[in-house]
Amino acid sequence: MIKSRAAVAFEAKKPLEIVEVDVAMPKAGEVLVRVVASGVCHTDAYTLSGADPEGIFPSILGHEGGAIVEAIGEGVTSVAVGDHVIPLYTPECRQCKFCLSGKTNLCQAIRSTQGKGLMPDGTTRFSYKGQPIFHYMGTSTFSEYTVLPEISVAKIQKDAPLEKVCLLGCGVTTGIGAVLNTAKVKPGDTVAIFGLGGIGLSAVIGAVKAKAARIIAIDINPAKFEIAKQLGATDCVNPKDFDRPIQEVIVDMTDGGVDFSFECIGNVQLMRAALECCHKGWGESVIIGVAGAGQEIATRPFQLVTGRVWRGSAFGGVRGRTELPSYVDMAQTGEIPLDTFITHTMGLEDINKAFDLMHEGKSIRTVIKF
Amino acid sequence: MIKSRAAVAFEAKKPLEIVEVDVAMPKAGEVLVRVVASGVCHTDAYTLSGADPEGIFPSILGHEGGAIVEAIGEGVTSVAVGDHVIPLYTPECRQCKFCLSGKTNLCQAIRSTQGKGLMPDGTTRFSYKGQPIFHYMGTSTFSEYTVLPEISVAKIQKDAPLEKVCLLGCGVTTGIGAVLNTAKVKPGDTVAIFGLGGIGLSAVIGAVKAKAARIIAIDINPAKFEIAKQLGATDCVNPKDFDRPIQEVIVDMTDGGVDFSFECIGNVQLMRAALECCHKGWGESVIIGVAGAGQEIATRPFQLVTGRVWRGSAFGGVRGRTELPSYVDMAQTGEIPLDTFITHTMGLEDINKAFDLMHEGKSIRTVIKF
Repeated sequence: MIKSRAAVAFEAKKPLEIVEVDVAMPKAGEVLVRVVASGVCHTDAYTLSGADPEGIFPSILGHEGGAIVEAIGEGVTSVAVGDHVIPLYTPECRQCKFCLSGKTNLCQAIRSTQGKGLMPDGTTRFSYKGQPIFHYMGTSTFSEYTVLPEISVAKIQKDAPLEKVCLLGCGVTTGIGAVLNTAKVKPGDTVAIFGLGGIGLSAVIGAVKAKAARIIAIDINPAKFEIAKQLGATDCVNPKDFDRPIQEVIVDMTDGGVDFSFECIGNVQLMRAALECCHKGWGESVIIGVAGAGQEIATRPFQLVTGRVWRGSAFGGVRGRTELPSYVDMAQTGEIPLDTFITHTMGLEDINKAFDLMHEGKSIRTVIKF
Repeated sequence: MIKSRAAVAFEAKKPLEIVEVDVAMPKAGEVLVRVVASGVCHTDAYTLSGADPEGIFPSILGHEGGAIVEAIGEGVTSVAVGDHVIPLYTPECRQCKFCLSGKTNLCQAIRSTQGKGLMPDGTTRFSYKGQPIFHYMGTSTFSEYTVLPEISVAKIQKDAPLEKVCLLGCGVTTGIGAVLNTAKVKPGDTVAIFGLGGIGLSAVIGAVKAKAARIIAIDINPAKFEIAKQLGATDCVNPKDFDRPIQEVIVDMTDGGVDFSFECIGNVQLMRAALECCHKGWGESVIIGVAGAGQEIATRPFQLVTGRVWRGSAFGGVRGRTELPSYVDMAQTGEIPLDTFITHTMGLEDINKAFDLMHEGKSIRTVIKF
């Protein structure tokens, strides 16, 4: 058992509290890591808001970390003490039906316990004053020390700065992967990206990497357009500038619609617009954003019968242990300009400010440094 | 101008009237054909019912024909007098953006005029007592003589019986093509087919041809199960036998869901069930059925974010002029057992009975012989 500074979400809708929690040593197949830095993502805020039906309290949020292995449990072979890792909320066991299918990154090996805020053996490694604290997304990176299943850490290059590549643990990889892995955008394609937060801007990077000919960035906040253009967007569109549906605007701009569209917000009306701005015959729309509980998407089936395709993407379709090192490489060469995303850096004690900045739309990503 | 016996839909919701219409000779780029036989399809009934918002009257319905070229207009080179052809409601010009994309069969060369019941030059070739009669789906096969654009006829082998291969003009090709062209079902895959009419039964044939390991045929009319099994279905399921949603039943039967599902009815609730019975991570659902005007499909976006794909198929993704001869081959070798589909045969004078049989669920296909 070791002591760890952590930001604990004791209940929904309340600020996180910075306290010293107890962290149990890793059991068989588990690793103890020291979190060097963690991004603060909208999904953390979503759960803290109480709107996430699967939210469990008290818990330690955070899922976008960069960490160093401090201890390993029995039988752990793929990482050693001192290795640099990125925690994975989508694990990669390489043994389950899903991993073996070769068709998806959605490893299901520990899904049921992870969803209950527990380690695979059904218990938690966190406690505060003797009371159990739940894990979150299998990662809980808002604690200086956290315990993860071995299959939930991606070993990465030691020369990469953890306080930057932590962003590859969620948003940046999600946006780029959705373009490259899920949609498989081809050179010359036309792409529309709805929402220019961390995921949408990452999708712009992915589209540039895929050599898309036209990258249309869409947001109702024109303050986002400068950075989108800097990253490679060719057109910026503010739906508020038009008095007709945005899908019509995009279809007219593109001689019939885009080859691929990406919804990066979680708004079900925009998911429909994103589908309907796709080109008849072949356009594909990828849902990345997470909608509110119980919300539904809808369209006329004719949209699909006439050749549009509707799909989704989780963690960009990326298999974390296998593929994250190549994302780290891209960050190291500057192909993924992580600095552009890090608008704020602060210590754990200020973490509630990071949530405020996000709610106010003032940050892309705040990185918490331990 | 020649005289032709035809079944005219003078107005919606009224029986067709067998009259002698005048048919103008083909203009440049057009062909005059003699229809030998025509299937009667649900889409004809849908338009006749008045529910089709694009239905135009008076018109000559019918779109599932087998015909012989009688005369060609100026500049026609791909067919000659005496050639056997299948009229195409989805033409193939080989020159438009859609044809040249290589990604879709939805040729748009004559879409706007075809949708208005007119030939590409904006006029009709049919008249009755001097009053114009509109074309339907660019085919109007309920007339012994009909005029079509050259791009709307697929030349086929002369040794194939037109009174059978006419069915390849719509339903049978649609079902098989959706499995082979749109979904690209692979050997060993598990498939669910919703609705065992002509299209659904054809999808069963397609799944057998793709070497699917398991073919689950679903219908609320168990009388359809014998023929489905005869064609190769491995499991038959009647949703009425269960007191829980059919998607749950299928997911339980298949250890997590099917690789591919096909909605062959046009029921938006079943379209949702078909999507939701697909396997997490990779299952794909294909909408083939045509829903009523204004109806919408819906689901939780989580269904797509967790890896399911929603798509649609029109005329099975088949490029008529290029691919129909290979379908005729399959019919000739018995791989496509067209006889199984032809439950009734009658003359044009009895065509209203064919609609009655369809409405009563007593026929798969009635073939009208001229």
